[in-house]
Amino acid sequence: MDSTDTSFEQRLRDNAGKTEALLTRLLADTSLNDEIVRPERLLNAMRHGVLNGGKRLRPFLVMESAALLGGNAEAALRVGAALECVHCYSLVHDDLPAMDDDDLRRGQPTVHIAFDYATAILAGDSLLTYAFDIIAAPETELPADRKMALVLALSRAAGIGGMAGGQALDLAAEKETPDERGITTLQAMKTGALIRFACEAGAIISGASAEDRKRLRTFGEKIGLAFQLADDLLDLTADATTMGKATGKDAARGKGTLVALHGREWAETTLARLVSEAADLLSGYGDKADVLTETARFVANRKN
Amino acid sequence: MDSTDTSFEQRLRDNAGKTEALLTRLLADTSLNDEIVRPERLLNAMRHGVLNGGKRLRPFLVMESAALLGGNAEAALRVGAALECVHCYSLVHDDLPAMDDDDLRRGQPTVHIAFDYATAILAGDSLLTYAFDIIAAPETELPADRKMALVLALSRAAGIGGMAGGQALDLAAEKETPDERGITTLQAMKTGALIRFACEAGAIISGASAEDRKRLRTFGEKIGLAFQLADDLLDLTADATTMGKATGKDAARGKGTLVALHGREWAETTLARLVSEAADLLSGYGDKADVLTETARFVANRKN
Repeated sequence: MDSTDTSFEQRLRDNAGKTEALLTRLLADTSLNDEIVRPERLLNAMRHGVLNGGKRLRPFLVMESAALLGGNAEAALRVGAALECVHCYSLVHDDLPAMDDDDLRRGQPTVHIAFDYATAILAGDSLLTYAFDIIAAPETELPADRKMALVLALSRAAGIGGMAGGQALDLAAEKETPDERGITTLQAMKTGALIRFACEAGAIISGASAEDRKRLRTFGEKIGLAFQLADDLLDLTADATTMGKATGKDAARGKGTLVALHGREWAETTLARLVSEAADLLSGYGDKADVLTETARFVANRKN
Repeated sequence: MDSTDTSFEQRLRDNAGKTEALLTRLLADTSLNDEIVRPERLLNAMRHGVLNGGKRLRPFLVMESAALLGGNAEAALRVGAALECVHCYSLVHDDLPAMDDDDLRRGQPTVHIAFDYATAILAGDSLLTYAFDIIAAPETELPADRKMALVLALSRAAGIGGMAGGQALDLAAEKETPDERGITTLQAMKTGALIRFACEAGAIISGASAEDRKRLRTFGEKIGLAFQLADDLLDLTADATTMGKATGKDAARGKGTLVALHGREWAETTLARLVSEAADLLSGYGDKADVLTETARFVANRKN
């Protein structure tokens, strides 16, 4: 680990700390909306699903994309927290018995194990709903048209044309292994869409030009692809202790991955290409883009 | 049935027809967002959960509240459709085996029966997400600040402080019967919040004054209370054929209702009082408010 790595990882950790602190506040009794009773058990299940010490990669991408284009850092932190609520809702629902049936996530019991099935469904529902609340709330100090663009882009990234649709394709893939194009599509939807949104969100927050927004969106696509490829590589090799969750399950279920189709060497070459393409996209921004290009490298090389 | 009833019911049916047509278009392949594959099975499950010939009471309330205050009818129709997606998502999830475990809804198999458990979870998730897409989309022609206010009010009505939280309290009520205050709170959240939002939404769409908005919101609260009370009365008496769903289940599960606590006569008196209070709230608008006050009566007297 050279000194660049250390300072990058420090920056990632610092931002994760800020995101965790904000999420803790957002999920505190007193921050939730006015007037009516909060069902404590449901709120605790939401906290269990969110406050789990994750790397908070998506919020980091929102923050750094906004920083690149001069966006409001406080607003970016809130949008990142909203995005993390969406990401965590998807994990809570994906872990359910009817879906991937996982008991363990980051070394902790999943929400339906720690609480119960119905509460886990409702906790996911409530986290998804809360994400839009966080963006729309007056505390997110952005012009209404930017907030609107964020709501639209996030709902499309998370919905049937994005993450939820990708999960449906993934479930179908257990019965019939998709071809290469099918695998690429499902991964772009299931994992890629939210990561792409994270980068695009930074541009929206900043009121960037359509060109900058498109560039960040494409950058996000590259990161998304790299993230998934690295994940497939890890799934092949890591053990449950490193990952804090069940591993090798995709292979056991006969799910196709690009790594399974083309092999490890191809995957490593492709990862290097993606990192280089991602860096090229941002080269016009000079040094200011160093953190984001470093993030691409980090995502491609991650070990857990 | 007098002539007023007939014309009111015709108006309700006409509006349900418009809402159904819009929802059908919104859930058509070609209307869903660009670029990527739509998982057909998931989309069919969403259609199954939504296009079921419901009365579309909530969209009607949005339309009529907007009409009262001079709001854009096209925009109101779209917001009504979005709200109906949220309502239908909640039914799809509430019917799941881990929740109320219902096989039948409006005389049709519920989504997890017609499809499967995982698809039903994802169909609910996708409908909830799509609601925010519909509001935020450029086709909803409203100023961004009104759209933002709609997103905020809807997410609060649907989230942990509203409908989802109410469902959590309702599940808890199966184990420990709440007292009167507890029942009132859970019903205000579970059923009341979306109905209240429907009326408030009309005011937001119209760019109404804070005073008008508050008045419509309170009107929506009265309708919500009447709706629930009528529902509890029906649950006591109707049979499954009339309701198209399992009935008497609340009583069988030992869930407390206000009707169970205070009896039928009290319920009928209270319904009459709520209708009268609702009408009083809108008396300042004169004849223009006739449809909404008629709606209050209709909700209180409904037979299915």
